[in-house]
Amino acid sequence: MSVEIVSENKAHGGRQLVVKHQSSATGTDMTFSIFLPPKAESGGKLPVVWYLSGLTCTHANVTEKGEYRAACAEHGLIFVAPDTSPRGEGVPDDPAGAYDFGLGAGFYVDATQKPFAKNYRMWTYVTEELPALVAVEFPADMDRQGITGHSMGGHGALTVALRDPKRFRSVSAFAPIVAPSQVPWGQKALGGYFGEDRTAWRKHDAVALIEDGARVGELLVDVGTADNFLETELKPELLQKACADAGIGLQINLREGYDHSYYFISTFMADHLRWHAERLR
Amino acid sequence: MSVEIVSENKAHGGRQLVVKHQSSATGTDMTFSIFLPPKAESGGKLPVVWYLSGLTCTHANVTEKGEYRAACAEHGLIFVAPDTSPRGEGVPDDPAGAYDFGLGAGFYVDATQKPFAKNYRMWTYVTEELPALVAVEFPADMDRQGITGHSMGGHGALTVALRDPKRFRSVSAFAPIVAPSQVPWGQKALGGYFGEDRTAWRKHDAVALIEDGARVGELLVDVGTADNFLETELKPELLQKACADAGIGLQINLREGYDHSYYFISTFMADHLRWHAERLR
Repeated sequence: MSVEIVSENKAHGGRQLVVKHQSSATGTDMTFSIFLPPKAESGGKLPVVWYLSGLTCTHANVTEKGEYRAACAEHGLIFVAPDTSPRGEGVPDDPAGAYDFGLGAGFYVDATQKPFAKNYRMWTYVTEELPALVAVEFPADMDRQGITGHSMGGHGALTVALRDPKRFRSVSAFAPIVAPSQVPWGQKALGGYFGEDRTAWRKHDAVALIEDGARVGELLVDVGTADNFLETELKPELLQKACADAGIGLQINLREGYDHSYYFISTFMADHLRWHAERLR
Repeated sequence: MSVEIVSENKAHGGRQLVVKHQSSATGTDMTFSIFLPPKAESGGKLPVVWYLSGLTCTHANVTEKGEYRAACAEHGLIFVAPDTSPRGEGVPDDPAGAYDFGLGAGFYVDATQKPFAKNYRMWTYVTEELPALVAVEFPADMDRQGITGHSMGGHGALTVALRDPKRFRSVSAFAPIVAPSQVPWGQKALGGYFGEDRTAWRKHDAVALIEDGARVGELLVDVGTADNFLETELKPELLQKACADAGIGLQINLREGYDHSYYFISTFMADHLRWHAERLR
């Protein structure tokens, strides 16, 4: 594997990199960001937190607005932020150019439907190819992984962790889509990428996965009460019920007056990273 | 004065606003951001820190990337970030569209040269009009003001404070232009806005102002050793010499490996805000 360092900036004592590489999963170039805390300079491997972004985002949104570096520097965490879809010439998009499907909206699945099946293989990308690359190229301790994400990326974090719980010592999410099969964003995406095969949908729906027996030890979720998508797309009460029924320890923080933006995420990022760090020691 | 709230987001317990208003100074609409910390909810007036941005920036750069809200929330500081130039239909720009003059590059002066004199009145805007508006519209204690800025905005912070030192209890800068008369960015800007009248230049040159007798009690400056502009445009050694000669207490932190970007600024923002807060109590 060869990687190209697109940019490198010193920040909070560590190194913020943006990295490009050719992805065999998606058949395109892919760009991600990775923050190496100051502790990375002293040798040895460090725990890694994966951050999956939401609709319309690239790696850049959280890298610029997420306010994660101070906490990662303090706790000695590597922080990796992948893109949200394949991009580039020949990669199909939503036929109408909508923001919630296609480019910037890969939903962390391996599509089976034409014309998306060729490139939209974000599941394989974030669960296999990118971790393998990070493990080789950076001092990441793959025995100490945590995962989080926002909105569509919160969906990604929950489903990735529920399907491979032993890999993650810590799982959290900001304003996640918890039951895509039951909400418009998810129905459009899963329908578009999988067609009407609802058994495929269930493997990419956190609430359905829990209903079908998937388990993680505990979950941390923050969501704002002023989030415009709370009632139509996020429906955290569905996750609460599923976790209660399954005996999963869910700590859900309803944050009064916060919306869906990075102003919300950045406010609670340090809390989440401390929570991850405690579990990744 | 009437103001339009363009956006409001809860963040770090406070309110991040973006505000638009018609400026009599510039003859254009102007947009700025203001963060009101949680303490603003409990009544009473709070100290305010002005942040002047650098070349090419609007209010948005520091608002998104500056990582100032956590510290402002902790210390109870209002944080105001103006735009860097007038904008809009009919506002003249650099004839060649260069980034370092005209739009995004007002240099915090009142231009005297045509065609810039009509709109490029950023000195009056940031020293008179905007403070008057903020004092009326927000719970800002105008007896407790601090000022900082980055690059061109560091130049702005230093010159504004040196010419009205009683107004500011605290003055700092990130990678400031300290002697615009002696460097290419400044020579182009001051020449373009003032023509060859070097007496006007001296009033907008921190080192010249100090040489001419202006004083502030103390200064805090951070600058990165990997800043591409360090030797050609910033020349912090000129400020060091002027402050030493004048007996001004300058604390200058040369930060190993940091560049000119918001990765540098955001790293040391909390340090600067704590320093301001200590002087604004």
